[in-house]
Amino acid sequence: MCEISEKRCLEAMLPVRDALDVLTGKWKLMILISINAGNHRFREIERSIPKITSKVLAKELKDLEEHKLITRKVYDQSPVLVEYKTTPYSDTLGNVIEELQIWGRNHRNIITGKQPI
Amino acid sequence: MCEISEKRCLEAMLPVRDALDVLTGKWKLMILISINAGNHRFREIERSIPKITSKVLAKELKDLEEHKLITRKVYDQSPVLVEYKTTPYSDTLGNVIEELQIWGRNHRNIITGKQPI
Repeated sequence: MCEISEKRCLEAMLPVRDALDVLTGKWKLMILISINAGNHRFREIERSIPKITSKVLAKELKDLEEHKLITRKVYDQSPVLVEYKTTPYSDTLGNVIEELQIWGRNHRNIITGKQPI
Repeated sequence: MCEISEKRCLEAMLPVRDALDVLTGKWKLMILISINAGNHRFREIERSIPKITSKVLAKELKDLEEHKLITRKVYDQSPVLVEYKTTPYSDTLGNVIEELQIWGRNHRNIITGKQPI
């Protein structure tokens, strides 16, 4: 079916699907950007991302931890302090984020008619 | 809140959100890869993507057309032939797809333990 053969077509798709499985839900990259920008506590992260709910943020943080993209550290003090930090591994997403930023900026200009295709 | 100031934090997030709005649903990029690989008819595209349903594919193709990433051409013959093609504009997604492939491939190796972080 694929001109480049079905097998190679799948080979091209699978890593993209793997990446999107981790990155979709549309919040994860934004959460990473926020933590990277200096928001380390739950409420700080929540306030920095328009329209995210506490429930969704809690789930996404857990997912990100499972995927080794952030760490969650609990400081045993009163009141308990919980801090989220991005891992050095999450830096490997730098190029993905940059390309999405470039494309997203350009696409907005095209869809709003500010720029011809 | 953001160390780099809240405004700049949002500025970094918004284009990523715009891009993800278009690209998420996790099927769209795979549909583009499939069409690019030579699948131009609905059934061909459907068969090339594991687990996609006709209903979802129909919706995603419509979305992609609205975002000017594919064209839908109807040939008035019997039976009617409908052909989907990627637009030259969709080539601008090349870098995004490439970076997602690189990252997805690497991430799979890490999560499966084939590669240390």
